[in-house]
Amino acid sequence: MQNFVFHNPTKILFGKGTIPAIGPETVAFGSKVLLVYGSGSIKRNGIYQQVSDSLRKSGAEIVEHPGVQSNPLLSHVREGIELAKTQKCQVVCAIGGGSVIDEAKAICAGAMVDHDVWKFFTGKKSITAPLPLTTVLTLAASGSEMNSGMVITNGETMQKFGFANKKLYPKTSILDPEATFTVPADYTAYGAVDTIAHVLEFYFTTQDPATPVQDRFMEGLIINAMESCDRVLADLRSYQGRADLMWTSTLALNGLTAAGLGKVGFPMHLIEHSLSALYNVPHGAGLSAIITGWMRHQSQDIPQRFAQFAERVFDFRSGSTKERAQKGIDALEAWFQKINSPTSLAALNIPDQDIQQIAENAVALARVWRMPDYDSERIQTILARC
Amino acid sequence: MQNFVFHNPTKILFGKGTIPAIGPETVAFGSKVLLVYGSGSIKRNGIYQQVSDSLRKSGAEIVEHPGVQSNPLLSHVREGIELAKTQKCQVVCAIGGGSVIDEAKAICAGAMVDHDVWKFFTGKKSITAPLPLTTVLTLAASGSEMNSGMVITNGETMQKFGFANKKLYPKTSILDPEATFTVPADYTAYGAVDTIAHVLEFYFTTQDPATPVQDRFMEGLIINAMESCDRVLADLRSYQGRADLMWTSTLALNGLTAAGLGKVGFPMHLIEHSLSALYNVPHGAGLSAIITGWMRHQSQDIPQRFAQFAERVFDFRSGSTKERAQKGIDALEAWFQKINSPTSLAALNIPDQDIQQIAENAVALARVWRMPDYDSERIQTILARC
Repeated sequence: MQNFVFHNPTKILFGKGTIPAIGPETVAFGSKVLLVYGSGSIKRNGIYQQVSDSLRKSGAEIVEHPGVQSNPLLSHVREGIELAKTQKCQVVCAIGGGSVIDEAKAICAGAMVDHDVWKFFTGKKSITAPLPLTTVLTLAASGSEMNSGMVITNGETMQKFGFANKKLYPKTSILDPEATFTVPADYTAYGAVDTIAHVLEFYFTTQDPATPVQDRFMEGLIINAMESCDRVLADLRSYQGRADLMWTSTLALNGLTAAGLGKVGFPMHLIEHSLSALYNVPHGAGLSAIITGWMRHQSQDIPQRFAQFAERVFDFRSGSTKERAQKGIDALEAWFQKINSPTSLAALNIPDQDIQQIAENAVALARVWRMPDYDSERIQTILARC
Repeated sequence: MQNFVFHNPTKILFGKGTIPAIGPETVAFGSKVLLVYGSGSIKRNGIYQQVSDSLRKSGAEIVEHPGVQSNPLLSHVREGIELAKTQKCQVVCAIGGGSVIDEAKAICAGAMVDHDVWKFFTGKKSITAPLPLTTVLTLAASGSEMNSGMVITNGETMQKFGFANKKLYPKTSILDPEATFTVPADYTAYGAVDTIAHVLEFYFTTQDPATPVQDRFMEGLIINAMESCDRVLADLRSYQGRADLMWTSTLALNGLTAAGLGKVGFPMHLIEHSLSALYNVPHGAGLSAIITGWMRHQSQDIPQRFAQFAERVFDFRSGSTKERAQKGIDALEAWFQKINSPTSLAALNIPDQDIQQIAENAVALARVWRMPDYDSERIQTILARC
């Protein structure tokens, strides 16, 4: 096990009926609140009303910043920052999934500095004292509600960049599984795939595979993501399934899985960010299209690790190491197909001749993320398997 | 899954060479430091020197409070509180295992109030603003380094009482596996047993067994506690084994296993606290003597849960539910025997005729912990199986 620091100060309020706590949790940091959200879905399902009622009851003055898109845009982040500055907001409250929470984090970071927020993403500036953030989660996927990272798309340069900073952990996140009851089947599935990808990234890129504590935890999360997703797809209003999927997705990227793994990569997200920047596909769908291609590429180097995955997650115990490794990947691919999640670029209508362009876009991010082993040739090789 | 709040703000610095960070981490809260520790072992193995050097280098003025015993005594806690008050200490730094950290927490709580600290333990007073605490862990067992609870023995009344408060999480805990290299085989084993007990308490007392995310996590921790303990007992200076055991013991009682389980009990600790208050046996050894007896008692009510434990932890897949439940308990007992940990009261030289007295002592704590289903008769029934 490698040395690590683990310090996750986010307070989680989990369960049904917890949304009315958002008011007190938010105004503890200030009464002028920038409320960040996406489209009208939270107005239709009543969550917007619950949150704004609770905020007002707690004495908050609300400044609205709606319209966050999936794959949130830098231009919209900049508008939010301008609003927070001119309205002198003291705290940001996000209602949504990963896109909304990510944009809210970027606004928190940018609202307290004079320079352009994109300099944080290109590594030219460091976070100092961001605005505090609270969240109400409406999609089980990104883990953003309990971590310090975010991803934003620069529409001018077509770059989808991300970074993390310990000062950007949400102060409080409210996780009410019932808030995800209206997520349709396809986005529920993509969320589960995103969760699984978060675990697999670290599981298969650690340079110190002697991490048995983390391994069991990660394997358990993958099993739970699949089982709870199955349960929800059978009944979109299954509280038990929604709760298990939500908590699994939060735990999958809150720092605990990576603690002790040493340097890990995020190669599937690296490539996918390029896909969704160029084609605006849902993040989980983009991941789904490349995960098993990347796994087949990666398993050539570390078949033993893939055999452990196959044994612990899918109970494949017979056959050679390579056979078991292969069977584990095949089983995951079959599960993606079962939940109607794409398993190839073709399934996303992305033509083969675009591979070079996708790879070159990804290489720019690989430089920022300091992943020099992901050059254009290697990324093209992986994409050719997808 | 039941509603829950999860909020664990302790910062963990894990790994070899991390002890010199204790100075800056501690003086961040004040330069007048009460240094709490036990016997001379930390002076012999150099840890005391490393900590005090780091504290002084960071500008700390150290007030010493040595002599903490295992099963720490209220009288010694009171001395520490008096010292902290008269010396106007601003922060407490504990070097040790669970006993030392528990006593340090009680000192933190008591140093800022005028009434006697025992009133916190009997539920007559609530924590307000305790002193901040940092720790350097030297024994993998209690989990106290990343939780908000403590247990103290009142030598006058022979009561071993505990409580938890969210204001008592350590600010920073340093976990250097090498600091546990000198822990002898018997206490290493008792630490592993304590860790396993922490997981089993919640696993088998949850009133909502629909907690698959937590279940996989808990099962993984038990497997890791056993595997890493085996590795350490084969080589007391195995870094890998010490690291896995240390991180497992911390995760076993930091709030994550219980999140979503609803009301859980702590019945084995309830009974053991009575044992170690009356006989001063090592906590882990006392637990070891009663765990499988309690499990056989408890499995009558929930055999399905015990069968899941047997299947997931020991890979027992055949036989009826009751047979698998029984085999799982037998396998755990066999492992305790393998690591030379006692599996009966007789092995601790505690005579059968003391059972009534032990039970009556435990009942007093059951009242404080609000566990009315543990009356004297039931506890005696369990003890008779031990």
